[in-house]
Amino acid sequence: MTPFNPHLAATVSPPVMDARRWVAGKVFSADKPLINVSQAAPVDPPPDAMRQAMADAVLRQTDVHLYGPVLGLPALRSELAFNITRHYGGRVEGDNIAITSGCNQAFCAAISTLAAPGDEIIVPTPWYFNHKMWLDMAGINAVPLATGGDLVPDAEAAETRITARTRAIVLVTPNNPTGVEYPPSVISAFRDLSRRRGIALIIDETYRDFHSQPGAPHDLFVDPDWDDTVIHLYSFSKSYRLTGHRVGAIVTAPKRLAEVEKFLDTVTICPAQLGQHAALWGLRNLDDWLGAEREKILARAAAMRAGFVPLTEHGWRLMGCGAYFAYLHHPFDLPSDKLARALVDQCAILALPGTMFTPVGDADGAKQMRVAFANIDEAGIAEVQKRLAAFRP
Amino acid sequence: MTPFNPHLAATVSPPVMDARRWVAGKVFSADKPLINVSQAAPVDPPPDAMRQAMADAVLRQTDVHLYGPVLGLPALRSELAFNITRHYGGRVEGDNIAITSGCNQAFCAAISTLAAPGDEIIVPTPWYFNHKMWLDMAGINAVPLATGGDLVPDAEAAETRITARTRAIVLVTPNNPTGVEYPPSVISAFRDLSRRRGIALIIDETYRDFHSQPGAPHDLFVDPDWDDTVIHLYSFSKSYRLTGHRVGAIVTAPKRLAEVEKFLDTVTICPAQLGQHAALWGLRNLDDWLGAEREKILARAAAMRAGFVPLTEHGWRLMGCGAYFAYLHHPFDLPSDKLARALVDQCAILALPGTMFTPVGDADGAKQMRVAFANIDEAGIAEVQKRLAAFRP
Repeated sequence: MTPFNPHLAATVSPPVMDARRWVAGKVFSADKPLINVSQAAPVDPPPDAMRQAMADAVLRQTDVHLYGPVLGLPALRSELAFNITRHYGGRVEGDNIAITSGCNQAFCAAISTLAAPGDEIIVPTPWYFNHKMWLDMAGINAVPLATGGDLVPDAEAAETRITARTRAIVLVTPNNPTGVEYPPSVISAFRDLSRRRGIALIIDETYRDFHSQPGAPHDLFVDPDWDDTVIHLYSFSKSYRLTGHRVGAIVTAPKRLAEVEKFLDTVTICPAQLGQHAALWGLRNLDDWLGAEREKILARAAAMRAGFVPLTEHGWRLMGCGAYFAYLHHPFDLPSDKLARALVDQCAILALPGTMFTPVGDADGAKQMRVAFANIDEAGIAEVQKRLAAFRP
Repeated sequence: MTPFNPHLAATVSPPVMDARRWVAGKVFSADKPLINVSQAAPVDPPPDAMRQAMADAVLRQTDVHLYGPVLGLPALRSELAFNITRHYGGRVEGDNIAITSGCNQAFCAAISTLAAPGDEIIVPTPWYFNHKMWLDMAGINAVPLATGGDLVPDAEAAETRITARTRAIVLVTPNNPTGVEYPPSVISAFRDLSRRRGIALIIDETYRDFHSQPGAPHDLFVDPDWDDTVIHLYSFSKSYRLTGHRVGAIVTAPKRLAEVEKFLDTVTICPAQLGQHAALWGLRNLDDWLGAEREKILARAAAMRAGFVPLTEHGWRLMGCGAYFAYLHHPFDLPSDKLARALVDQCAILALPGTMFTPVGDADGAKQMRVAFANIDEAGIAEVQKRLAAFRP
């Protein structure tokens, strides 16, 4: 067989797919069914009214079936600009926005505009695995930036990692995998550092709509020159339950979007049109609904926190909790990748190990587990906690 | 502003988007409206019954709104395998197939499994611009392989271009931009060459369903070891008018698909689900409809050929004609990129110049134009020919 690209061959396989294989073919008892807290994704479809609007578009609008502009529907770009301005203040225009086939693609596009093979990107750990995978397959060096016990990265520590090859720093807030929300002052400090050193600040806010604070989570967009440094990423997938339609966004300078356009045209030509129509409908009609969804998710996070106390008596520690995620420190000698499989077999819980979010051999990752609780209600969270408390390796 | 990745900066901007800008804001008279033959895309929606099936799925099937497997819906992979086996003979299984977000992405994924920066891919010219763009942005060298007057590449000539860095040869048949169908013997010769030299043969058959011959266009899949060398690309976009839903496919060895899965997971997570459901519905229900579509396209190609005679008297030459495309040799001193703009202004025809499909400075490309006639009926084709015959620079 023809040989493989060594960069791609050295990239890990998709963690969520690997995790699915751990449970494939296994039978779980009816009184202890599998609880899947591995993927950060809604399990319910979008609200009825949105589905009806989508069905109507499928039947009556020719354009949802045809190619659209590479950078996305102009109406959606404008509406998202309006939404961002309303939420964050400052000035963002439709010309600052490209719609992408999901937020992973927004990250790939952003990096493609910034870094060539051999360049470096600073990524706080634990990191989001698909970010690390894209850097690996592109031959770009992911420079890990360890976070402390609070899981919040430090700009001064980041500065010591900057070299002549550094092109960007990546922040994810609210964070995947940890659920931690970065304070505005930390975010501004990273922006100031990035600007001073002439590198980009990529800020992935996929879980923005589930932030515990109702107002603007940072003031980056209020800076009139924000787009010389900041590249903001967003996803419609979680907020409107559109994961199967692949709609995300990248918010940056129009000049950078001209580069993004080359990448997107070549990789997908345009985002799927129906998902874009749905996202636009959501922005126009689902503010109240989304507010209620946010309350639901915040209540789950509160339940995770409140119910965690007994687990601490067994040596577990809740390191982070927010957005869709609880990030756990476990008390066992077992490394987390082994623990994750044991939890499938003994507890019927599918959760991802910290090893999937940290560099190979990282001692912290071996002690950590991510629990994506957005899929399960308070009763499900209590059941997860009960099963974990009963677990012995 | 943070600097740009030089590989992406050196990549040309999307030709179809550039061409749209040539006509943006221009007013065309009612008696001579713009004829857009720039993009290879249907302008009508999918048939009513398919749209009804899609609308039903949107309303009743939760899974069309949620993440699916990275490599695509198992039922669609199996159905396409069955379809390929029926069409080409030989043995292709669902495990040989990944569904992609369009056929451009299938190409990107295939290349990513094969080549690292600095490697080489041999691409016959004129080439499909998005292939060239992906290679450019990935830092991979596109090695042009000139085709002769018949626009069919020659395997012996290709062999002289192979070096230690060569990873694959790319064939597109029926060809975009030329419309030329490569004879089975040429395709086998490229397969034999590729296998002998330990490189891959990527064969993009996006326009397969509009081939002038009703049977198998080659016997690659009959070879029991086909997947040690051949990577086949397919698109549902043109056949079922699903361009806005982004559904393509890559057909290769399961072992290579494990690498493809890493790429697809990172770039889009999964293909849009609704488009996959539509493609599956099409494979199961639209054979007769697609057969009739093919006849329609073949009739347009015949009209292009039959009506071309008067143009030859003005020095134009029809170099290739098939699938969605006529590839024209023009008689003017003007390079084709200038000619293309003159045709907008004087003839109200938007067509892409050969310069978009050939290396920078290529003398052949400067003499060539692509006319994507699939969008226009016989009357439209006659009108294009009439306007071209009347054109003087």
